[in-house]
Amino acid sequence: MKKDTKTELLEKGMAIIVEKGFNNTGIAEILQAVGVPKGSFYHYFASKEDFGIKMIDYFTESYFAELDEYLGNHTLSPLNRLLAKLYVNMDRLRASNYAGGCLFGNLAQELSSQSEVFRNRLYQAFESWMERITRIMDEGKEVGEVPLNLNSRELAEFYVNSIEGALIRCKLLKSDQPIEVFKKMFYQEICKVKEVQPI
Amino acid sequence: MKKDTKTELLEKGMAIIVEKGFNNTGIAEILQAVGVPKGSFYHYFASKEDFGIKMIDYFTESYFAELDEYLGNHTLSPLNRLLAKLYVNMDRLRASNYAGGCLFGNLAQELSSQSEVFRNRLYQAFESWMERITRIMDEGKEVGEVPLNLNSRELAEFYVNSIEGALIRCKLLKSDQPIEVFKKMFYQEICKVKEVQPI
Repeated sequence: MKKDTKTELLEKGMAIIVEKGFNNTGIAEILQAVGVPKGSFYHYFASKEDFGIKMIDYFTESYFAELDEYLGNHTLSPLNRLLAKLYVNMDRLRASNYAGGCLFGNLAQELSSQSEVFRNRLYQAFESWMERITRIMDEGKEVGEVPLNLNSRELAEFYVNSIEGALIRCKLLKSDQPIEVFKKMFYQEICKVKEVQPI
Repeated sequence: MKKDTKTELLEKGMAIIVEKGFNNTGIAEILQAVGVPKGSFYHYFASKEDFGIKMIDYFTESYFAELDEYLGNHTLSPLNRLLAKLYVNMDRLRASNYAGGCLFGNLAQELSSQSEVFRNRLYQAFESWMERITRIMDEGKEVGEVPLNLNSRELAEFYVNSIEGALIRCKLLKSDQPIEVFKKMFYQEICKVKEVQPI
């Protein structure tokens, strides 16, 4: 089934923006990628900012729907569910030759000081992410994968923040290596997962 | 002594770009901040890209000169020298209401997929940074602050990358909290430094 124009604008716009940045992407470029006239854009979106906010909402929904599938897969241990999601994300990053990265992290870096509207929306997206990872850390404690003396919420924050930093360096190096180092430090040194497969 | 125009352009340009991004900053805005006409800019810089590269070089030089002072202060233990530098950086970030962050990290995120010239220059800047932190980890091993079984270079990479990620979240939250979490995890859980002062 052909996607509707609004969805196409959101998805193609996101693919361009995650690579080039929000300020650096013009509406004309998104229109060209989808092959629709300017009127189509303003039929669905009041402005570029409105598009940006709706794009974050769209990505938040699809990202967390997918994340929840991985985190709900009880055939794997809690930390291995997180790893399975990391592996699929890294496959995608590699396929793009490390051009994109994480939309949330990229926009937080670019727009937090520029727009309170974006900052609030991105704050919520990270909050939803943290809540999910905090629950996984709690579950990890129950099965002995996560040290009981560590605070699950702080572990979740460190997990997400450190991945965001590693992704910046993946873009710079065009390599998975920063994520490999992250995995080793987080899974083996902070948590006590003995063996972790390479990406 | 009044700074020369070239230095003023580099410093004021950097202050704007670290907050707004490279693509989102116009030459006119930098000229206005310094109060010089367009001709001055093109007297010193062939193009905006040339300015960007010279700005990275200028910041690299001044940043590492300051870092080397902190890391060479042998009245403190190796990891406490690193912490002392982190504290001064955080003072500055707080003073800017978390608007800026790390020029290297911001530009790596923004420009790595856009320009090989910038990517190579930023790669070198991170490399210089990693080398310094690797030496500190080696020194930390000598005094028992860093576990001997961990690879110093990997620790250095994890240190730098995780700080970059924490800084993105500091911008988003307008708070030091992500760096506090980083400190706890890196210093207390990965290394074995028992007590770390709050920022």
